[in-house]
Parts: sequence; C-alpha cells; structure tokens
Amino acid sequence: MENNSTAIQLSIFISSTDKKGITVLYEDIVFEAKKAGLSGATVLKGMLGYGASSIIHSYKFWELAEKLPTVIQLIDEEEKILKFFESIRPTLESMRYGCLVTTQQVNVLLYKSGQKRMFDL
Amino acid sequence: MENNSTAIQLSIFISSTDKKGITVLYEDIVFEAKKAGLSGATVLKGMLGYGASSIIHSYKFWELAEKLPTVIQLIDEEEKILKFFESIRPTLESMRYGCLVTTQQVNVLLYKSGQKRMFDL
Amino acid sequence: MENNSTAIQLSIFISSTDKKGITVLYEDIVFEAKKAGLSGATVLKGMLGYGASSIIHSYKFWELAEKLPTVIQLIDEEEKILKFFESIRPTLESMRYGCLVTTQQVNVLLYKSGQKRMFDL
Repeated sequence: MENNSTAIQLSIFISSTDKKGITVLYEDIVFEAKKAGLSGATVLKGMLGYGASSIIHSYKFWELAEKLPTVIQLIDEEEKILKFFESIRPTLESMRYGCLVTTQQVNVLLYKSGQKRMFDL
Repeated sequence: MENNSTAIQLSIFISSTDKKGITVLYEDIVFEAKKAGLSGATVLKGMLGYGASSIIHSYKFWELAEKLPTVIQLIDEEEKILKFFESIRPTLESMRYGCLVTTQQVNVLLYKSGQKRMFDL
Repeated sequence: MENNSTAIQLSIFISSTDKKGITVLYEDIVFEAKKAGLSGATVLKGMLGYGASSIIHSYKFWELAEKLPTVIQLIDEEEKILKFFESIRPTLESMRYGCLVTTQQVNVLLYKSGQKRMFDL
C-alpha cells in the first residue's frame, strides 16, 4: 500500500468460539491473512453483542463460555482483499451460527513498514 | 440483508458507566436492537479515551470506576438503522456526559444467518 | 461538530508497546488529541493480530509482553483531523515497527457535548 492511496477495510464478524476443525477460526483467519501477504490484521473482541444467530453473548459469563462477538479487521488493496475473502469464503459459509462480512473504502494516510525482528513468527 | 448489498454501520460512542434508569446503557441498546430485529450488535470497550465531556478515562484505574469509552456497532439496512436510531435518540440526548453517533456506508459481502439454539435468550 | 454533518474518522494502528521517549505512544496520542481540541478519542486493544512488521502478537502471551495491536479512533471535522495527523506524523514515521493510518468519511447523526465535572483531568 502507498501513502495517500485508497484501500479496502474488510471486517469479519464472527464468534470467539467459532472453529475450523480444531483451530479457533479467528486465529486461522489471521494466519491465513499473513500467508496471503495482507498488510495487517487486528482482532477485536466485544464484551456484549449478538450476531446472525440472534443469541446475546455477554462478557459477564465469560468464565463459562467466553463466547463473545469478535471482529477481524484487515486492510489492503482491493484486489488482495477480495482474493483473500474468496479464499476464506467456504469456511465462513460452513459456520453453523452465521457471520457477517463487510467492506468499506478507506484512505491510507501513512503506511510504514516495520523492521523485522530476529524471531519473526 | 442480502449478499452484495449496501448497508449502514451505526456507531454509538458512550461511556461504559452511562445508565438508563438502573440499566447499563450499552446493555439496554443491545437488547433494544435485538427487539427491533437488527441483524447484529457488537459492543467494544476501549482501554483509554475521552468523549464529549473531555474527561480522559483509563483502563489503569478500572478497579475504581471501570468508566471506559465504549462503542456499540450495529449494521443493517439504512431504513432499519435510522428508525432504530430515532427510537433511542431521546435516551442518548438525555445522557449527562455527552455522546457521539455516526453512520458510514458499508458493502455486505456475506451475511449468513445462523441456526438458532434451544435456549435463545 | 454539528448534527447531520460530515466528519472524518482517523484510525491509527500501532502496537500497545510502541513508545515515544518513555511515554506509551497511544497515551501520548490521546493526550495530544485532547490538547488539540479533538472531540473524542477511543483506544481499542486487539487480542491478536499483526502489523507492518508482520509479527503476529497474541493475547495468549500477554503476561510476557502485552504487545498487542492497538487502534486509536478519532472523529472530528476534516480540517482538524488532518492538522492533528500532521502534528503527530513525525512521531509515527519514527516508529521502528511500522504503523498504519487511515481515514474514512462518516456522517454525524448526534454529537452531544457533556457537562464537565469538577475534577476534569
């Protein structure tokens, strides 16, 4: 991504307990995004909410289930974002409790690539 | 909401300690959103910030007050979102410490309704 | 900001451990935003993610480092937002591990200024 360019923010709304096989889904998506070379990913966990299954989940009961609304935000050029979305679409469509995926256009004011460290995961 | 349609994201910035009567405001809004049939809601709690009252709240003192900036995000069709906003507007306008409500347009790439469970709240 | 006006949301993606001198960077930015008179700021900490340095950070190891993706969201009129961004740009460009700054247009449905309290920070 270039400074002063247009990019796409992809937001994936799932539950913190959604799984792909035995892997936590949001972890899987972040690792896949990194493999696909996307510029970055941020996973935000909500403290209350409900999604496509209309069940309200609350932080108050996290000790029991920790089932909380979770948003994964990914920002990159449109082509890369849409290609990545198509690659994870089958997984998202197979989720039992529903999900929501949105995009919105953003302007990149500054994108500064960092120095890699010795023990990069 | 349909796949590949346009929707509106409503963001409500309040404090985690705002109340409507004896109910926590963000809980009230989430339950009202569900009653209104909105597709989903996510409550994100910040760890530092300030709002319309210009008082900085920090997670560092959460044991004392847990007064933290809180964002409620709701996504649905424009008409439903605006109708819902008008229904909670009087409550928001009566808040003592101010609030901010914004909308932005998003594209829905995927909206998958989930299977309901036996003990739906 | 006026009700029913257009504003800009500035999103600054950094790490929770980024520092400006001995100050935590996200704290510094929030205090600078308040000094600049911006209407509000919200700092959201992610639980997993990676940024421009492509190192994945997880909440699972927070006891060791608490190095987590962090988003600072600021909303105000375009002119104020861009002026503020220029004032913190040198700091962001000097960060070793990279960062991402985006803007997007939002509509302000309601901005209610709060009553100040006696012990305003």
